[in-house]
Amino acid sequence: MSESLPEVSPHRMAELVTELGRVGEQPGGGLIRFVYDDAWRTAGGLLAHWMAEAGLEVRTDAVGNVFGRLAGTESEATVLTGSHFDTVPMGGRYDGALGVLSGLAALEALSKTFGRPKKSLEVVALCEEESSRFPANFFGSRAMLGTIADDEPETLHDADGMTLADAMTRIGLDPRAIGSARRNDVEAFVELHIEQGRVLQDEGTRIGIVTAITGLRWLDVTVSGRADHAGATPMDLRRDAMQGAAEMTQAVTALVEAEGRPAVATCGAWQVLPGGVNIVPEQVTFSIDLRHPDEATLDRLAGRIRQECARIATRRQLAVALNDTKLVPPAPMDESVRALIEKAAAEQGASARPIPSGAGHDSQMWAPHVPTAMIFVPSVDGRSHCPEEYTAPEDCAVGASVLAGTLRELAY
Amino acid sequence: MSESLPEVSPHRMAELVTELGRVGEQPGGGLIRFVYDDAWRTAGGLLAHWMAEAGLEVRTDAVGNVFGRLAGTESEATVLTGSHFDTVPMGGRYDGALGVLSGLAALEALSKTFGRPKKSLEVVALCEEESSRFPANFFGSRAMLGTIADDEPETLHDADGMTLADAMTRIGLDPRAIGSARRNDVEAFVELHIEQGRVLQDEGTRIGIVTAITGLRWLDVTVSGRADHAGATPMDLRRDAMQGAAEMTQAVTALVEAEGRPAVATCGAWQVLPGGVNIVPEQVTFSIDLRHPDEATLDRLAGRIRQECARIATRRQLAVALNDTKLVPPAPMDESVRALIEKAAAEQGASARPIPSGAGHDSQMWAPHVPTAMIFVPSVDGRSHCPEEYTAPEDCAVGASVLAGTLRELAY
Repeated sequence: MSESLPEVSPHRMAELVTELGRVGEQPGGGLIRFVYDDAWRTAGGLLAHWMAEAGLEVRTDAVGNVFGRLAGTESEATVLTGSHFDTVPMGGRYDGALGVLSGLAALEALSKTFGRPKKSLEVVALCEEESSRFPANFFGSRAMLGTIADDEPETLHDADGMTLADAMTRIGLDPRAIGSARRNDVEAFVELHIEQGRVLQDEGTRIGIVTAITGLRWLDVTVSGRADHAGATPMDLRRDAMQGAAEMTQAVTALVEAEGRPAVATCGAWQVLPGGVNIVPEQVTFSIDLRHPDEATLDRLAGRIRQECARIATRRQLAVALNDTKLVPPAPMDESVRALIEKAAAEQGASARPIPSGAGHDSQMWAPHVPTAMIFVPSVDGRSHCPEEYTAPEDCAVGASVLAGTLRELAY
Repeated sequence: MSESLPEVSPHRMAELVTELGRVGEQPGGGLIRFVYDDAWRTAGGLLAHWMAEAGLEVRTDAVGNVFGRLAGTESEATVLTGSHFDTVPMGGRYDGALGVLSGLAALEALSKTFGRPKKSLEVVALCEEESSRFPANFFGSRAMLGTIADDEPETLHDADGMTLADAMTRIGLDPRAIGSARRNDVEAFVELHIEQGRVLQDEGTRIGIVTAITGLRWLDVTVSGRADHAGATPMDLRRDAMQGAAEMTQAVTALVEAEGRPAVATCGAWQVLPGGVNIVPEQVTFSIDLRHPDEATLDRLAGRIRQECARIATRRQLAVALNDTKLVPPAPMDESVRALIEKAAAEQGASARPIPSGAGHDSQMWAPHVPTAMIFVPSVDGRSHCPEEYTAPEDCAVGASVLAGTLRELAY
């Protein structure tokens, strides 16, 4: 292996991010690029064009994943990199997109510096990860892994009532051909992504080497009390569901704060009924999003939350019901690939640290199947899922260069 | 004055409550009788019919208030009793209606037992108090007192966009004639109403003699933090608006609980934004409904609430803004009329106690203008503004008899 390093320039990354960031941009900022819509199609076409310009073999599969391939000289086995190119509603230019663009720039740099790899190298622009249009989470990765259920295309609807199958058919994709998207030749997956938090920025670290993608539990908590007249009911005779829910949300926070990083819990969605200014709240439903990369810890915290909520409800003469609405097990990243990322970062002189991922990513779909790892780059102020999402071109370039170094170790 | 007592029977009260309670009843229970709708018109017609049957002179004014009059032998001055006959959405059979029916039954009993009074006695069924259809609160009382603003009929709309003026015109009332509803001959107002709380029931007391209608402040509290990714943002780096709001609502409750009865505060209307399960809440708006019958205490509590919210916001690096959205000063009831109610209760052998009214009532419109007082009867389980609203016929009868005794003192 040559001793020179693959290098991606800040200028190249800025150019790619800026161009792709125009596709689906709304007046006043914020991106809307939902799977199979017009902006999404334009973005897919632009990415295919860039892949071809970089000298890669371009291909689109049955669900609209776009691939750029550098065929291996010795093996058909494929080292895969990439991420998704759909966005959340009014999202930013980096979430997902930066992983695709870094993969493209990395293959471009590797090809230019080192020529063809021994194993095949491929960058993928995955069609869907965010569930912004259909509740189809990770649709691109799942198509490649063969884990899409047969009834999904006909049963999943968007907000306008259109099925996923109809949305595919409308742009010339055949939902009956989804099975053909399956890949059995992938032997490693490396995804670059923005951190979406502020840990790297606050420390001034350039590279996060993801240890595990966090496990996640979503709980719906329903607290029931009694609606009473806000003027005529003395405080000592009330059973106010909101007072109970307020105490519960603080107890949840106190529990994860006592556990310490990386435990997090968020109570983000609230409904307070009947909702009148002059009526004591009768029923409150709120969500708990609880995350930890260690499954045993996650179980223990969920158990403690149940206990605390029950204790608070009893003391306040309220009823409480907790329902699990989502369970995602933690996905540990592959240690040998993590070591290669660490080595590549050291070669680039980039500071690096292990970091858990608190957010979900395509990599968690891949991890149970093939050696998988993730590279994080800093997010300014930790902003994500919003138009203010930003990573400096220099940080993007360091990330893409470390990705290139890692892929070089895996494929050359 | 004769030594016999005016008496209203439980049977008569049950009959009236049951009949009127059918008008506007929804399938499955709950009343909808909004000003100027069909059920409201039917109810007004039925009340007029009953008033005529009781030998009263019946009249309807320009806004649809219905009157039954027993003309005085010595004076044109009028002693007025009654309440409103509109309901809240899915309301009960007693709120407002019981005051009208008790007035009717009281005048019936007085006329039968003692003949014509010296001063004129009138029962009024007020057209509107609840703001259920138009934000016109106390429209019936305000018409009689001449305090309806000129622009109200044209500017107030119902949920379907119809103006109050159009709703009046549609049923043959002339909005330009509202001024003619003004009355200058009323020299006392006595209103019977259900307690809407559970103080009388819990004590086994039959009659509440209202000391004052509570003063009220409505505040809108807006807490602003920062939206962050629920997975990627460590707890110690968050500025979670909902955690701040939860602490504030508990502080508000603690403050009024420490003050003790009759101080009450309710945080009933909530909006949590952006409202995603996996997004740290950025902005929370909630309402505070604060009540106390003593104005100085109300001011002091409102000041303390502002201080507490500011202190909590500062400690949590949040911003908070509190806006007054409604201020209603306390309305003390007339001491001499209260004494007459006390005397009438004693004559009937009915247990009585002074009680503040935590809810608003037509009487608070009348109190600044003429000697005004209120009689409360027990509400089972304190339920009100719901189909379960209930007062036993015996309690209704005792209330109506005490009302009759009070009116006798005032008019005979």
